[in-house]
Amino acid sequence: MSATPSSYSITMRLHTAPDHGVVGRVATAIAREGGIVTAIDVADSSHDRLVVDVTCSAADATHSEQVVECVRAVEGVEVYKVSDRTFLLHLGGKIAVTSKVPLRTRDDLSMAYTPGVGRVSMALAEHPEDIPRLTIKGNTVAVVTDGSAVLGLGNIGPGAALPVMEGKAALFKRFADIDAWPICLASQDTDEIVRAVEMIAPGFGGINLEDIAAPRCFEIEARLRASLDIPVFHDDQHGTAIVVMAALTNALRVVDKLLADVRVVVAGAGAAGTAIVTLMLAAGIKDIVVWDREGCLSSDDTSLPLAKASLAARTNPRKVRGDLHDGLKGADVFVGVSAPNVLDPEWIKDMAPEAVVFALANPDPEVDPAEADKYAAVVASGRSDYPNQINNVLAFPGVFRGLLDARAKEITLDMLLRAADAIAHVVTDTEINPNFIIPSVFNPAVPKAVATAIREGVADSRK
Amino acid sequence: MSATPSSYSITMRLHTAPDHGVVGRVATAIAREGGIVTAIDVADSSHDRLVVDVTCSAADATHSEQVVECVRAVEGVEVYKVSDRTFLLHLGGKIAVTSKVPLRTRDDLSMAYTPGVGRVSMALAEHPEDIPRLTIKGNTVAVVTDGSAVLGLGNIGPGAALPVMEGKAALFKRFADIDAWPICLASQDTDEIVRAVEMIAPGFGGINLEDIAAPRCFEIEARLRASLDIPVFHDDQHGTAIVVMAALTNALRVVDKLLADVRVVVAGAGAAGTAIVTLMLAAGIKDIVVWDREGCLSSDDTSLPLAKASLAARTNPRKVRGDLHDGLKGADVFVGVSAPNVLDPEWIKDMAPEAVVFALANPDPEVDPAEADKYAAVVASGRSDYPNQINNVLAFPGVFRGLLDARAKEITLDMLLRAADAIAHVVTDTEINPNFIIPSVFNPAVPKAVATAIREGVADSRK
Repeated sequence: MSATPSSYSITMRLHTAPDHGVVGRVATAIAREGGIVTAIDVADSSHDRLVVDVTCSAADATHSEQVVECVRAVEGVEVYKVSDRTFLLHLGGKIAVTSKVPLRTRDDLSMAYTPGVGRVSMALAEHPEDIPRLTIKGNTVAVVTDGSAVLGLGNIGPGAALPVMEGKAALFKRFADIDAWPICLASQDTDEIVRAVEMIAPGFGGINLEDIAAPRCFEIEARLRASLDIPVFHDDQHGTAIVVMAALTNALRVVDKLLADVRVVVAGAGAAGTAIVTLMLAAGIKDIVVWDREGCLSSDDTSLPLAKASLAARTNPRKVRGDLHDGLKGADVFVGVSAPNVLDPEWIKDMAPEAVVFALANPDPEVDPAEADKYAAVVASGRSDYPNQINNVLAFPGVFRGLLDARAKEITLDMLLRAADAIAHVVTDTEINPNFIIPSVFNPAVPKAVATAIREGVADSRK
Repeated sequence: MSATPSSYSITMRLHTAPDHGVVGRVATAIAREGGIVTAIDVADSSHDRLVVDVTCSAADATHSEQVVECVRAVEGVEVYKVSDRTFLLHLGGKIAVTSKVPLRTRDDLSMAYTPGVGRVSMALAEHPEDIPRLTIKGNTVAVVTDGSAVLGLGNIGPGAALPVMEGKAALFKRFADIDAWPICLASQDTDEIVRAVEMIAPGFGGINLEDIAAPRCFEIEARLRASLDIPVFHDDQHGTAIVVMAALTNALRVVDKLLADVRVVVAGAGAAGTAIVTLMLAAGIKDIVVWDREGCLSSDDTSLPLAKASLAARTNPRKVRGDLHDGLKGADVFVGVSAPNVLDPEWIKDMAPEAVVFALANPDPEVDPAEADKYAAVVASGRSDYPNQINNVLAFPGVFRGLLDARAKEITLDMLLRAADAIAHVVTDTEINPNFIIPSVFNPAVPKAVATAIREGVADSRK
């Protein structure tokens, strides 16, 4: 079995016979088992043994155990210790606080702390409009979760969610030089969450809601937007929508269709699906059908619960009914934010010619991208091991950079559309092709372009 | 008028005639006005002018304006710009978040973020006891305020308090490598504050309450200690008490008296005074009289409000009544945490021989330390421009370092006493003298000794 690139990266510390041929035998054994050796380091060498650190990738946990076993079986090798590199990386957490000011002398302390800081505080008490300029509030975002919808893991609670929030904060710093801090809340009650965020807001320039389950996330975001004078942004909703919109914009450039003309099917009526629909409607897409496990949502179905009835009321002008296959007939675009393997690749043949398929369920998409690629013109997923990865990292850093720079008090649909457009147009006409509709997350032009677009959107909103 | 060392540090950018003698004339003028020149930099030199940056300290804002005016008056000098160094230091805030893990490649992202981080979160969901080891919770402290009692400024609110909290966080990092984050709360209601801190607790290993007014601070701390499983410490109470106790321990080493024998007068019945009394009683001091503006608190005064009656019930065995002068008669120790100039230095003559006087009101103490020094054997204050500065920075970093390292769930009086003792004994028998009863905040032995003492206290509490 061959390993696909994976985060199952282990480091084995081996004690071996003092025979340098053993290194080659270990590497061969790993390769035969389908592991990928990424580093070998002879850490120590003496007359009676070698100490060799071997780092390799495996497909998953089970595969990594198989790799370890076959290394153990190599003659002259003792597997002394196996470390999971991902876990090692997490020891002690992934972010830290640093001081930006020197604190070496009494003079330093007297300016950064008492009594000098007192003068700054006094000035801010008289001129609160200076707070963003003279404190961290001009550059901070709270990454807020209750741990109720963490990645593909569901409701794991605030403590177990902390590594994900730390990672988010690290990404904010890496891609937008924003100082983001994780806030993991001890309750999943809507009122308590709203009140807690209102209480901590004075020290932050923006709020990023993360991994909070639908439908509570809609009310929480709406109430906080109403009560706070800083922007509130649920990334699982709007970050996803922005990047989907950017990818769709470029997919339509490739297949040469217009937004106003296409028929879109969105699979999944949760946080992401709802926000995608909202943004698509704002962008001028007219024909959207939402499907979830009950079937295609139509306003003539009076049995729908409130959130889905609301979605149905805004979509499906042709009142399409039935299952996903029915909904897909003649559709130009499929966007999946639902569950694994709900889409049979053969159904793509019944879509319009030059079909666009985005299969974003995480970790296993609605359809295998390689299979979809046989029938669709453009395929995207959330997977990093296929082309066209739809990754929220393309959006949220630049979005908040722009909001903070513009001292925005709110974020609007217009700003989201501008951000999507900015991401799309980082890909030039020369570069664009069916396997390159989204820029790389590592392209520094992306957060710059997004931040600029947001700042322009804020300026426009103030006219 | 001569300047005392001060945080009123300004940098003047001067445009002058191209005559290098002008630099000397400027420096002379500043000195004549009582300013202290700390740096001169000829930033640019051309045939028709010099650009000279002059940095100097003044006693206060008014004095700095006088210094600027007299520089303006020097022939051939134009004062182009005046910058307040303290404010410059605060631009953009004083702390930042950094990533501890690399984020350069897809492989990096796949371990620090999705999908690798998902495995860590899943493991923590099953083994929450591993959270401190694999996340920042093992090293974070929330610095929580409502802005109701900030330094000597009073109730300035959460936004204006932020620079002080940032400074506190910077000190936590500098002296104990702790990642502390400011949390400035939007309400001063006790119930709301308690609930907000309970809500954010999952991501933190400890809570430092700061600049929250008495008497609300007592209830807030008590309720949080009851509901949280991480330590809660109001530094204005207990940090002050620890350092006072350390200083007192050493002052008594100097004057050769025993804790159990001394008569102590504490001026001020607020947060600090109450905590100092509590710690002194725990340390074995038997005879404490608390004075505040109503007079000496005695349990036979039935008019006292609740908090003061409670203090009175625990102190003043001799039922001393009257004003501060009355209370001081025959006392060995005066500890002031009250207001400026309430203590006439002449009254120290009526204290016991070898009197110890700690005048800690901030920014102006109960008595001028120089005056007190004429009559007392040992004098300490909160001022950095006199010997024996009682500074909470000696305590809170090491205290939390020890609590975090020991994964403590609570903090006890015994731990506070151990911390005080550790600080005191950093000063050796050879070093100790009336002008050196407290170690320097920059002595790295201090936070180490305090953290060790706390860890031992935690271990002891678990037996």
